[in-house]
Amino acid sequence: MGQKVKKIAVMTSGGDSPGMNAAIRSVVRAAAYYRTECIGIYRGYQGMIEGDFTPMSARSVNNIIHKGGTILKSARSKEFMTKEGRAKAYENLKEEGIEGLVIIGGDGSFTGGVVFNSEYNFPVIGIPGTIDNDIYGTSHTLGYDTALNTAMEAIDKIRDTASSHNRLFFVEVMGRDAGFIALNTGVGAGAEEILIPEEDLGLERMLESLKKSRRSGKSSSIVVVAEGDKSGKNVYQLADYVEENMPEYEVRVSVLGHMQRGGSPTCFDRVLASRLGVRAVELLIDGKSNVMVGLKDNEVVSTDLEKAIKGQNSIDKELLRVSDIMTT
Amino acid sequence: MGQKVKKIAVMTSGGDSPGMNAAIRSVVRAAAYYRTECIGIYRGYQGMIEGDFTPMSARSVNNIIHKGGTILKSARSKEFMTKEGRAKAYENLKEEGIEGLVIIGGDGSFTGGVVFNSEYNFPVIGIPGTIDNDIYGTSHTLGYDTALNTAMEAIDKIRDTASSHNRLFFVEVMGRDAGFIALNTGVGAGAEEILIPEEDLGLERMLESLKKSRRSGKSSSIVVVAEGDKSGKNVYQLADYVEENMPEYEVRVSVLGHMQRGGSPTCFDRVLASRLGVRAVELLIDGKSNVMVGLKDNEVVSTDLEKAIKGQNSIDKELLRVSDIMTT
Amino acid sequence: MGQKVKKIAVMTSGGDSPGMNAAIRSVVRAAAYYRTECIGIYRGYQGMIEGDFTPMSARSVNNIIHKGGTILKSARSKEFMTKEGRAKAYENLKEEGIEGLVIIGGDGSFTGGVVFNSEYNFPVIGIPGTIDNDIYGTSHTLGYDTALNTAMEAIDKIRDTASSHNRLFFVEVMGRDAGFIALNTGVGAGAEEILIPEEDLGLERMLESLKKSRRSGKSSSIVVVAEGDKSGKNVYQLADYVEENMPEYEVRVSVLGHMQRGGSPTCFDRVLASRLGVRAVELLIDGKSNVMVGLKDNEVVSTDLEKAIKGQNSIDKELLRVSDIMTT
Amino acid sequence: MGQKVKKIAVMTSGGDSPGMNAAIRSVVRAAAYYRTECIGIYRGYQGMIEGDFTPMSARSVNNIIHKGGTILKSARSKEFMTKEGRAKAYENLKEEGIEGLVIIGGDGSFTGGVVFNSEYNFPVIGIPGTIDNDIYGTSHTLGYDTALNTAMEAIDKIRDTASSHNRLFFVEVMGRDAGFIALNTGVGAGAEEILIPEEDLGLERMLESLKKSRRSGKSSSIVVVAEGDKSGKNVYQLADYVEENMPEYEVRVSVLGHMQRGGSPTCFDRVLASRLGVRAVELLIDGKSNVMVGLKDNEVVSTDLEKAIKGQNSIDKELLRVSDIMTT
Repeated sequence: MGQKVKKIAVMTSGGDSPGMNAAIRSVVRAAAYYRTECIGIYRGYQGMIEGDFTPMSARSVNNIIHKGGTILKSARSKEFMTKEGRAKAYENLKEEGIEGLVIIGGDGSFTGGVVFNSEYNFPVIGIPGTIDNDIYGTSHTLGYDTALNTAMEAIDKIRDTASSHNRLFFVEVMGRDAGFIALNTGVGAGAEEILIPEEDLGLERMLESLKKSRRSGKSSSIVVVAEGDKSGKNVYQLADYVEENMPEYEVRVSVLGHMQRGGSPTCFDRVLASRLGVRAVELLIDGKSNVMVGLKDNEVVSTDLEKAIKGQNSIDKELLRVSDIMTT
Repeated sequence: MGQKVKKIAVMTSGGDSPGMNAAIRSVVRAAAYYRTECIGIYRGYQGMIEGDFTPMSARSVNNIIHKGGTILKSARSKEFMTKEGRAKAYENLKEEGIEGLVIIGGDGSFTGGVVFNSEYNFPVIGIPGTIDNDIYGTSHTLGYDTALNTAMEAIDKIRDTASSHNRLFFVEVMGRDAGFIALNTGVGAGAEEILIPEEDLGLERMLESLKKSRRSGKSSSIVVVAEGDKSGKNVYQLADYVEENMPEYEVRVSVLGHMQRGGSPTCFDRVLASRLGVRAVELLIDGKSNVMVGLKDNEVVSTDLEKAIKGQNSIDKELLRVSDIMTT
Repeated sequence: MGQKVKKIAVMTSGGDSPGMNAAIRSVVRAAAYYRTECIGIYRGYQGMIEGDFTPMSARSVNNIIHKGGTILKSARSKEFMTKEGRAKAYENLKEEGIEGLVIIGGDGSFTGGVVFNSEYNFPVIGIPGTIDNDIYGTSHTLGYDTALNTAMEAIDKIRDTASSHNRLFFVEVMGRDAGFIALNTGVGAGAEEILIPEEDLGLERMLESLKKSRRSGKSSSIVVVAEGDKSGKNVYQLADYVEENMPEYEVRVSVLGHMQRGGSPTCFDRVLASRLGVRAVELLIDGKSNVMVGLKDNEVVSTDLEKAIKGQNSIDKELLRVSDIMTT
Repeated sequence: MGQKVKKIAVMTSGGDSPGMNAAIRSVVRAAAYYRTECIGIYRGYQGMIEGDFTPMSARSVNNIIHKGGTILKSARSKEFMTKEGRAKAYENLKEEGIEGLVIIGGDGSFTGGVVFNSEYNFPVIGIPGTIDNDIYGTSHTLGYDTALNTAMEAIDKIRDTASSHNRLFFVEVMGRDAGFIALNTGVGAGAEEILIPEEDLGLERMLESLKKSRRSGKSSSIVVVAEGDKSGKNVYQLADYVEENMPEYEVRVSVLGHMQRGGSPTCFDRVLASRLGVRAVELLIDGKSNVMVGLKDNEVVSTDLEKAIKGQNSIDKELLRVSDIMTT
């Protein structure tokens, strides 16, 4: 018996998210704990192709658990989408003696891992790192909880000025094609309306709802809009539409943007990263491959990478209902 | 069919926690949504005895979702522990036409509710509000997530100064007899050692562990101590003990204290409060009583109040293990 | 001898800024201290015209010192720009027995006050409240210090993601026609380049500077741009220009927007508000008019309102130089 | 003409404070700008004696401006208080070719510099780094503004729980023998009473004042106490005294402690650090010695080190008065 793998590598890939450093730290420390060598790969698949490697010890990840971003940097690699690129990458890993890989990233990054594994039978384990929470097989992706708080705190500040001026604010939050950030920050910030891709409210109904809110005595309002909202209009067009139809409001727009990807991770994200990193290493050492580690019912679980890529998290219907009731 | 209850009351009781205002707001808004009258009771059971009531409308809870503390105030009531006190309280509720009660608080407050119900058959529903996360029947109590982040951010700051001076810090966090805050903030803040009531590490082993950490190249260290730690020594005695046995360290103590009970709630706590408040009202309207609403596997669930009081959440063994690995 | 004024009013006018509530609190408490009645006027000059008044006691400003926005709300009033509007406003003040007015706002609001005083000889005192720091006669306007920190913390988060991806970010901050926020947050956030209205760097030189920074080993960069920058291009055009000329960078844009106007004020702004509010009341009581209270060399000073309106704060040349040296 | 000094060193000494890293960065970048070599000395005077040096380039201070603590670490050195210690230190500096020294620290550290200069005629320039703001010759020391905000935000959280329970809180803040932090955070957090070393209120008057505040309708109160308060009682004894004499209050104590020394510096502290670092280098290069750089009236100024050590900042009488008026 014993460890099936004696040397592993870890990298971050795709868009960065808060908690990636905590996950790197956890992978490196777990490897050290199991007396397994660990190599850091810079800039994801691109660094794998270029052999941009660095050995990592338990001490090399001191003082990073609280940092946003990723010390291993991230990138998107076109070259890795080619057979030649992947061949180079494999050569580099083999030459370095690396026998397994932990990929911290989103579904694009996992797809790369699945292809790589299918071609070279190289063990890969995924850790879901993205603020969008759009990965199947985990209730929370790394960075999602932090992004919720970052966005919500920004909306809290916007509400100060909205309610001082009887203004209506459209605030766009991130989330790609998923409304998780919008729905949760909308409820958390007490928004009057929340527009998400999963539910097409319709412009008419939004207007009706804002008018009702106004009649009920609210003099200022916040509408939270997911970036991937499918109303057919972007946030500026929505604002124009409402301004035309509700001249009693001064309408303003704020696009929160990239700050949502940064910042020191919350306690939840740091603990999650620590738990997932340990499990990822244990799975690799155990000879497992092609799975993603995630959280379900507060337990660490594994999901087939292919399922994780194809599946989709659905928005919580009950929370949608709560959101409606809250804007009574 | 119809609503079994036409007028309800809501109150906060026991120690306050972030998210209580969000829960009050949710109860009031849900009541308004279901066209049920809602009365706010000030200062918990004491206000119930004194008839310290205020009618609440959907608008009376504007702009409180983000506030720490509780606008209904909280108190501990000795009088309610007497039969006479409870009789007065019942008279006041009856006179006001209140037919059901939502109690936001901890297990002491729930015990009061169970007794009251047994005597007067008065419908009561509990919402678990405490930073300690020590209530059975919910994975998260209201305010716990916020307290984790407040404590962790304070420890982050302490680490700045610890690592500038090669110091060892003992940081005491809250949690009564439960180690949830200590374990999670310890992992989140990257503490070298975590002392919790659920696991008696022993002074010898702690010392050994700190010495190992020092030998491994760490020049500063944080030990997170739960207030209810059972080592037989308080945090100051622990510090003295280590200082005597490891003269190479300057040892310092910080007791984080009551700031952990305050602050604006995190997105998680605000969303949780919104969900639990709605469910509590729906249960009351439905004729239910003697249950606590809580979160399990990200779903809102109900638990018998008696079970919630008697049961105990146990600390996550896997996280203990992760914590050990992280301090490699 | 004695007080020349027995009843005063306070209002906030124009764009809101953090610290306005602290200033209202200070004016109200100082009035109470000097046994002077105090009326709050809602929505600035518009509320004055509509007689939207509320009596304020020392207790009515409890628990507002830490709140962003303004509990008296703010507005811009076209009607006050007419003789008729001002006549109505005067009638309302007279009828209420108000003998002096504290205006918390920017130079537009002060201009209204000067005109009003010239027509009705009505005593007015200004407190400079704006995040832009563009008012002559004070080293700091109310809200400026808070806005600096809000913007800087957002840029800190953006840097996390910028440095994870070797990206170049253009971040637009507020400040109207003044570069105070851009220059200070740029230095504070360690920006590679800062574009302000007071200094036209020129696109060529900016490009040169970014290339130098890149050659020197920096792989990511932040350029902070004041909203009133006079390069003839807005922030999106700047980004396009650089992307064309430096294809090695991925360029991104973030407009921080209205969140900069909100949030809980910093200690500096709360203390400043407390000091200015007291002085404003003391001046009114003393029979003074047409002056603005402000801070110079950490002392509270008075400036003629007309001077405050006409004068201009100039950007600190030494800080510009420091900024150049920091980007070495 | 020309630079009088071609190689300098920088170190941090004594208690650390937020902004020290920003100052190190500024010194290093300014040295690079003036093509002057720069050496970092670890652990202050102790590292000087041990020759614990590291060369620093403009790139070696990337990404530290926002970090609390000091990357050069700090220490107190008993050995440097001996002639032999200082001789060793001088030998190390000479051997390394270092011709001037920037000391970031408090008056204890400056005293060491003055003695060293008197013995070896070695050029030293001081940058005032301490949260206590107790150094003559500058209106603000590095870290003071950050500490004010850290302490005030903690008190804001404590107020949440204080006002939920009608409690009276005694909160001890740092400041050694100076009341700057207590007075400013007390005013900023809206404390009902502020106890500072510079003004002995007397226990009787404090009690009277708290009773008055209670009668005026306040149900909860915060008393901010400077650690060096001269009432003859420590914060716990004060609490006991009040609890005995005002049984209507539940009294609690919170000692904020070392978290006040850490955390990411505010914009003010980062900008101040950048300005002072540049000036310190320019002075050294210019052949100056034995001066401290500081801020007066928002201008960077120099003060004789001896004066800086002997002089004392006095508390702002006007702010004391404002504080009294605010608690009306």
